[in-house]
Amino acid sequence: MTAIPEASYTVGDYLLDRLAELGVTEVFGVPGDFNLKFLDHVVAHDRIRWVGDANELNAGYAADGYGRLRGMSALVTTFGVGELSAANAIAGGYAEHVPVVHIVGAPSKDTQAARRVVHHSLGDGDFERFLRMAREITCAQANLVPATATREIDRVLSEVREQKRPGYLLLATDVAEFPTEPPSQPLPRYADNTSPRALALFTEAATELIGTQQLTVLADLLVHRLQAVSELEALLAADVVPHATLMWGKSLVDESSPSFLGIYSGSGSPEPVRRGIEQAPVLVTAGVQFTDLVSGFFSQRIDTARNIDIGPYQSVVAGKVFAPLDMRAALHALTGILQHRGIRSVAPETAPSPPAAPPPDRTEPLTQKSLWDSIAGALTPGNIVLADQGTSFYGMAEHRLPSGVTFIGQPLWASIGYTLPATLGAGLAHPDRRPVLLIGDGAAQLTVQELGCLARENIPAVIVLVNNGGYTIERAIHGEDAYYNDIVAWKWLDLLGALGAHGHLGFRAENQAELDEALTTAAAHRDKMVIIEAVVPRLDLPPVLADLAHSAAAANAGPAGD
Amino acid sequence: MTAIPEASYTVGDYLLDRLAELGVTEVFGVPGDFNLKFLDHVVAHDRIRWVGDANELNAGYAADGYGRLRGMSALVTTFGVGELSAANAIAGGYAEHVPVVHIVGAPSKDTQAARRVVHHSLGDGDFERFLRMAREITCAQANLVPATATREIDRVLSEVREQKRPGYLLLATDVAEFPTEPPSQPLPRYADNTSPRALALFTEAATELIGTQQLTVLADLLVHRLQAVSELEALLAADVVPHATLMWGKSLVDESSPSFLGIYSGSGSPEPVRRGIEQAPVLVTAGVQFTDLVSGFFSQRIDTARNIDIGPYQSVVAGKVFAPLDMRAALHALTGILQHRGIRSVAPETAPSPPAAPPPDRTEPLTQKSLWDSIAGALTPGNIVLADQGTSFYGMAEHRLPSGVTFIGQPLWASIGYTLPATLGAGLAHPDRRPVLLIGDGAAQLTVQELGCLARENIPAVIVLVNNGGYTIERAIHGEDAYYNDIVAWKWLDLLGALGAHGHLGFRAENQAELDEALTTAAAHRDKMVIIEAVVPRLDLPPVLADLAHSAAAANAGPAGD
Repeated sequence: MTAIPEASYTVGDYLLDRLAELGVTEVFGVPGDFNLKFLDHVVAHDRIRWVGDANELNAGYAADGYGRLRGMSALVTTFGVGELSAANAIAGGYAEHVPVVHIVGAPSKDTQAARRVVHHSLGDGDFERFLRMAREITCAQANLVPATATREIDRVLSEVREQKRPGYLLLATDVAEFPTEPPSQPLPRYADNTSPRALALFTEAATELIGTQQLTVLADLLVHRLQAVSELEALLAADVVPHATLMWGKSLVDESSPSFLGIYSGSGSPEPVRRGIEQAPVLVTAGVQFTDLVSGFFSQRIDTARNIDIGPYQSVVAGKVFAPLDMRAALHALTGILQHRGIRSVAPETAPSPPAAPPPDRTEPLTQKSLWDSIAGALTPGNIVLADQGTSFYGMAEHRLPSGVTFIGQPLWASIGYTLPATLGAGLAHPDRRPVLLIGDGAAQLTVQELGCLARENIPAVIVLVNNGGYTIERAIHGEDAYYNDIVAWKWLDLLGALGAHGHLGFRAENQAELDEALTTAAAHRDKMVIIEAVVPRLDLPPVLADLAHSAAAANAGPAGD
Repeated sequence: MTAIPEASYTVGDYLLDRLAELGVTEVFGVPGDFNLKFLDHVVAHDRIRWVGDANELNAGYAADGYGRLRGMSALVTTFGVGELSAANAIAGGYAEHVPVVHIVGAPSKDTQAARRVVHHSLGDGDFERFLRMAREITCAQANLVPATATREIDRVLSEVREQKRPGYLLLATDVAEFPTEPPSQPLPRYADNTSPRALALFTEAATELIGTQQLTVLADLLVHRLQAVSELEALLAADVVPHATLMWGKSLVDESSPSFLGIYSGSGSPEPVRRGIEQAPVLVTAGVQFTDLVSGFFSQRIDTARNIDIGPYQSVVAGKVFAPLDMRAALHALTGILQHRGIRSVAPETAPSPPAAPPPDRTEPLTQKSLWDSIAGALTPGNIVLADQGTSFYGMAEHRLPSGVTFIGQPLWASIGYTLPATLGAGLAHPDRRPVLLIGDGAAQLTVQELGCLARENIPAVIVLVNNGGYTIERAIHGEDAYYNDIVAWKWLDLLGALGAHGHLGFRAENQAELDEALTTAAAHRDKMVIIEAVVPRLDLPPVLADLAHSAAAANAGPAGD
């Protein structure tokens, strides 16, 4: 490590102290000459560790995975080349409400002022081009200068924390080194946004709508992002409250609860879930945003007249808007209504268990169904399941998870390959939990080099690599046999070693017996990285995905389409 | 292949016909559901072939390598996730003047009009966010609609062709399928921009400045991009004209010519080159842009009073500007001046050959110097040398290349990892030539998955993988022993096979004897891919790079820096 001179507290140190205050203990990224000195401060920081990634896109994905679990994360790249390589990951964080602070090392202020034609610029002397690009995909930005650097750092970090979306800091080499003082007080929180009058009127309207009827809840991702999970749990505990989530918010609630109906996805839902939600006497939707891939292409049927919709900063009761009203306050008010009316509702109709399937022939080739059934059965509390947007996501989303399992997917941004580096971030965010990565061969090719970093960081991930010979989700939408949906056939079991791993375990499973053996061995070696190459038919799909792919193809055709 | 109904010529077909007209026979990219139907048209096109890449950044780099040699290239990605992953490559094309048409498959126009919350969007109904980002890094953009699609395609392609910079086309699924007619005439060229009056006055001023003195020429990259190479060659043949290039334009001229001085890089130049350029009686600079990394950090010393500067659209004689005046017309005028004055100048002072070095001890460990000496000695006419921005670029730039060798580097944008996928593009652009890829281990990690595609396309590249244990160029600038400059140790010789190659040859060379054997074997197998892992000391640098790294560190410190 390069020594930092004592008594020279800098703007860079201030930024790192603020990040540490917000819970960051790992910073992801790739070195470049415009951030090297700042990295000395990262390395020297007593609460923060540097985690180098194989490239910037992967670093951005790792920071995203970390931010989802930690509630804050940081990514360091270099000007131009580095930051743009991470743009997809940052935009994904915006779409999926993930707090990532993107710190970009830039040429010194005098280089910028002189508009010099320096490397990593477009050669036109304009050093704010990439900041302007970042405006489209981050919630706050700053081009730091010595005079206002600490104030601007506080502004951007506050916005990231409140909005749960990425922010952007352009940090010139000399600004990072500029002397300053440490923060004198914690980063101020925004004031409670709730209007007492709006809350009172909301409570009155909700009390009237609910009356003596049973409440049903459909909750999703934003409840997690707005840190309203405990308020949701209190509501679900205040009566017998049948409830569901979308796939996006999967694992937000305990899926082993008897009141958990399942995953709602519009017309693609299992019938008892669809009926439970759409025919609820009064339905609370909390933190719900219907997107194409989690709503069966907007096939949800929610009757506004019987709906209480709780958004981040406003709520709507039977079509009437109450604002400003924070999500937590609204959920708390509903809990109060249930507690004070003194009614115990009946347990929801339990879906009949599917008839016990005959035990599969253990020598038959694996299918998507048998694969996901087996993986789901092997999960244990504490697992973090990362399912890439493809057959892995839809295959796993249909299964109930054990209590204490966290599920991470990316169904709005839907960038294939995301989950592989996100596994690194997730594993470092919660080092006591074992990540389980579910990813197809087509997706894994995009970000594969991060496997080496997973090995270096000793993440004991179980990696289920679904080998089905290419982009199966694309084949389902269009081009079933088109060669643009083929990929180069890799030797997956050789790759980990070539990328620097050792001591890991590798299995290829073509049938149930081989898969069972791999999963059993993985469970017996909780400290090792395990890769299981699961071979399934090229065109096999989880059932829910077949419908969705058909809808996607229709949407792409447009109204005049074929 | 999915069949295209007959008699349904579409906007997508029009775009492909225009690209084919401009010399494109391969289209690079990654499939996504918003571009799949367009890919059917790519696959069905009689003059264009689809080349799928392992990810979008790599596809962008491949398109860049192709565009540098072909003069036009095309990249297809999908909305949001795909296009943003390629942003670094597109910006690099802008900085380095490379013509790449970036075609982005987008949701259908009715999805956009309804502002639906669909995958690959940020969920806010704004479908022009990424187009606005593209404005910062492309020279022309269009969001195609049926009414003006063909006109807008022509506009963007014309700008790309004239400016030699990337353009951006947002192509909604249904717009791509909209019926239209084929082009009725070739894409119109812009009118000659040269003012006859400006040309006459320029010729007069140049004639006077030159008089009877010998002309010296410093030419660079933009001569190639403006397609003025034959005009430059005519000028160099019109008298004995000592000449040099910067590293950026290396291989623009025949480096085996007796009038070739060498590579000029300001104070970092070899002394005879520095003197030849800076003390020239009259110096013509043609297509020259001094950037930090090719000018020894702006240490060039050009006396304006003795300088004729020829830019793309204007020229300057001893400080006086003549415009509009196209580069080709200006070069042609200078040739005429030399031809008509009837003087034969003397041959330039030949730099004394360095004393013949004693033959290296073939069992001594390789060094940067011995490595690049050997590689340079093994090059043969026709090779395309791609040198990644690091020790590879500076190590090779110092060496004279045989006639007919093309050199590709990226010293302005300087994105490490670029050359590996660019080798795919270069190999497909000129399939009769053998690419030689020179890249460090730190850089190769960023884009390594493209090796599988190189193998699939049977590119017989010679890959020299410089293993020096991490980011040596960064160590030279700052953080010599910092662990942020370390990388995960990969097993390079195992990787190619794991990534799907077979029939390739692999060598590890730690000394001269091993390197010689590898190079000899590579030469004997011109149809095979060969990887040579060359092991050199961790902190060893090509001489020119040591000075440059010192200047870079000083520039980053800023005026108040240490």
